[in-house]
Amino acid sequence: MRQMSAAHTSKLYEQVAERLEEAMASGTLRAGDRLPSVRQLSASERVSVSTVLQAYVHLESMGLIETRPQSGHYVRRRERPLPGEPQVSQPAASASPVSVGALVSRVYRAVGDPRIIPLGASLPSPELLPVRRLHRELTLQAREASDVAIDYDMPPGCLEMRQQVARRSLDWGCPLAPEDFVMTCGASEAVHLSLFAVARPGDTVAIESPAYYGTLQAIEAQGLRALEIPSHPRHGLELDALEAALNKRKVAAVLVVPSFSNPLGSCMPEENRQRLVEMLAARGIPLIEDDIYGDLHFGPERPRPAKAHDTEGLVLLCGSFSKTLAPGYRVGWVAPGRFREKVELLKFAQSVAVPTLPQLAITAFLRNGGYDRHLRSLRRQLASQVQRVVEAIGELFPEGTRVTRPQGGLLLWVELPRKVDALVLHERALAAGISIAPGPIFSAQKRYGNFIRMSCGFPWSPRLEGALATLGSLARSLA
Amino acid sequence: MRQMSAAHTSKLYEQVAERLEEAMASGTLRAGDRLPSVRQLSASERVSVSTVLQAYVHLESMGLIETRPQSGHYVRRRERPLPGEPQVSQPAASASPVSVGALVSRVYRAVGDPRIIPLGASLPSPELLPVRRLHRELTLQAREASDVAIDYDMPPGCLEMRQQVARRSLDWGCPLAPEDFVMTCGASEAVHLSLFAVARPGDTVAIESPAYYGTLQAIEAQGLRALEIPSHPRHGLELDALEAALNKRKVAAVLVVPSFSNPLGSCMPEENRQRLVEMLAARGIPLIEDDIYGDLHFGPERPRPAKAHDTEGLVLLCGSFSKTLAPGYRVGWVAPGRFREKVELLKFAQSVAVPTLPQLAITAFLRNGGYDRHLRSLRRQLASQVQRVVEAIGELFPEGTRVTRPQGGLLLWVELPRKVDALVLHERALAAGISIAPGPIFSAQKRYGNFIRMSCGFPWSPRLEGALATLGSLARSLA
Repeated sequence: MRQMSAAHTSKLYEQVAERLEEAMASGTLRAGDRLPSVRQLSASERVSVSTVLQAYVHLESMGLIETRPQSGHYVRRRERPLPGEPQVSQPAASASPVSVGALVSRVYRAVGDPRIIPLGASLPSPELLPVRRLHRELTLQAREASDVAIDYDMPPGCLEMRQQVARRSLDWGCPLAPEDFVMTCGASEAVHLSLFAVARPGDTVAIESPAYYGTLQAIEAQGLRALEIPSHPRHGLELDALEAALNKRKVAAVLVVPSFSNPLGSCMPEENRQRLVEMLAARGIPLIEDDIYGDLHFGPERPRPAKAHDTEGLVLLCGSFSKTLAPGYRVGWVAPGRFREKVELLKFAQSVAVPTLPQLAITAFLRNGGYDRHLRSLRRQLASQVQRVVEAIGELFPEGTRVTRPQGGLLLWVELPRKVDALVLHERALAAGISIAPGPIFSAQKRYGNFIRMSCGFPWSPRLEGALATLGSLARSLA
Repeated sequence: MRQMSAAHTSKLYEQVAERLEEAMASGTLRAGDRLPSVRQLSASERVSVSTVLQAYVHLESMGLIETRPQSGHYVRRRERPLPGEPQVSQPAASASPVSVGALVSRVYRAVGDPRIIPLGASLPSPELLPVRRLHRELTLQAREASDVAIDYDMPPGCLEMRQQVARRSLDWGCPLAPEDFVMTCGASEAVHLSLFAVARPGDTVAIESPAYYGTLQAIEAQGLRALEIPSHPRHGLELDALEAALNKRKVAAVLVVPSFSNPLGSCMPEENRQRLVEMLAARGIPLIEDDIYGDLHFGPERPRPAKAHDTEGLVLLCGSFSKTLAPGYRVGWVAPGRFREKVELLKFAQSVAVPTLPQLAITAFLRNGGYDRHLRSLRRQLASQVQRVVEAIGELFPEGTRVTRPQGGLLLWVELPRKVDALVLHERALAAGISIAPGPIFSAQKRYGNFIRMSCGFPWSPRLEGALATLGSLARSLA
């Protein structure tokens, strides 16, 4: 961790938390040890009491410490230490045409099959979503606005919805106006349209490595080339590496997921976001910011979108409700900055409109309140779920397995011992009724042959525990 | 008409109807004249009684004749003759990059504005749609399948929906299986994905001229070139012209709307469809068939998709429920033939999934019956509406105006006197609260400067009549 905190300036409470983490990792603090009291630490670290409290809440949400009433904070006991984290990725420095092909369809198809445990899909289980309330809003809208609801909702999309999203953008620390947004069929369409708006076929787009396979597919479909940039498991895109790449070659756009990226789960520090936006603004290069996981932070504060630093209109901010409310409603948005008119027209050409009723239902849900309450509960559940799966991996997977420590979202990036072929593991797991996402689909260079991505969107259950045990023993048999 | 019937072999009843139409056009049959009895005509034309009856129903649906009970069929009286039809289009024979730009957004944006009479948008008014029944199905599905309904419905899309569409394909005379289909966000997305699947940036796609502006936008977005082929106002794409073009240059795909094309309303005769498919199969060129208006035939039979002649898997058939059931539900499909896997993957990359609940609602609506009954009533209303608007144009528009005689769909293509600038008319009409679609957006070559497209999707009303009168006098002032 030490090397990270040197390279990236983080929030104060995160710095305090990281120092405690280092103490635990080095053995200075051991399982069962009592942590300093809040007042002690506040004095020794020269930070406020509330900063220390934030740091403790943060460490607790990661499952590293526990609070004992009337007694204090203790390092959590565990049977064996948590596995280590993967290293910074080292993709080749050349731009590649993309082709990850048919493997991808095997991963997403497993989502619809109830016999298969979908650890491969990035989505929250319906049990974690306000299903009934949303459907009720939809039913109400179908009755009260029936003619509007059956009709096209032409781009840029329903004004009241854009007002609701604009209102939320204040909480993100990135105030936008309703007219800044174009509604889309989920964030995927938003990213797709953004790529269309800023790049021409043959152009190169710089992305994180590993990167979401859907984005790689979109890049391939549009005849673009992907330039994979080394990425840090906690802090995302390595900016020095990006800068070096930009100095060497022409890049039409940079596409990143700064908050809880897919699959790394990394979260770019605020300072990096600012540096990234400034670096690109100086070169006139558009930044496509996929913020689909932004609302799923485990820590107390939502990360500010990089868009907050955009003074040139060069950042296209993409988001949706697919990971927080209703994957099947297909409602997302893009705030495309200076590319607004172009994106709106492309949206019309590509799929005309956003589904009207689902959009009205989500608008009503946002208007009537309860989204923030829902988010708090969802985040708590995902944080605990992520932690349990990390622990299970530590117990059940082969020696030498490494796994990320995401501070938000619902994904884990698992590095298996070098001998384990993720594609073979994927096949065997599917045969055993378990879907995972094999590493090679996250790279245009087909790297990550011994990595898998696992989703933690499903609540803990004996069935899930069994699946993890099966997966672990399959991996061990390959190691 | 004579020249057309020579060039294109039509159905028997259509041939009989065309001969009667010619007799009316030439003055052999005049307003108020009694037509031959069914038995007489059956004998003189050497066709069955039922063929004559079909011809008479057809002429009546076009508003050319009327039935007087106990008396027979008569040529309808009208105050002035209907306007003539436009000629076959004559686009330049070179492929063009597309850019019809910002005008398009002014046309679609007017749809959402209740103060504007949307004669520019191609959609049926909610009054003509089974709004309540659909919303009720949706409400039921939200209750009964709540967890499924909130989740992604991953490509290729809900099996039961694909079964329902496959069942309907039997009635189209083009039997397809559920596994032939990939569900999409409307037919626009289907066409967009099909283009992606068969053409690479820089490729040329042959299209009708005039062509739907959304398709032109999609062609532009993908970096393709549009080759506009002369098209006949009744029979669509001119196949000799297409063949000549294919002999001269490399074409990656042909994209047509054989049934009630947008904006011409033309319907390709069965023989032309077969010739088209064979011509392309011999050259290995894919055909993208946009069949979105196929269910809206005014005559007794639904035109068979060209796909029915596809033996090579080279036809990608696109359709949706947007023009017949629910524009705002965003449910369409593509049967991509040999490009099936590719299209499915592209669909995933572009927008992941189709909105789940709207899809479930339409599936239930199809399963419970009533779609065919609804279609019969919708077609009757659109046929009568189209006829009334044609008559109104004859009365209210400047001398020399020409207008198409579509046999299905809801669109009219109006040729104004050469002096009338459609862009100026569009501006003035908008200022008067009326939206029309100006001709130049239907051509990559910015032709059709004195044409407009008008939608007949709204039931006759004093407000609509007033709008047509205003439009007529605006056009006259420009002529």
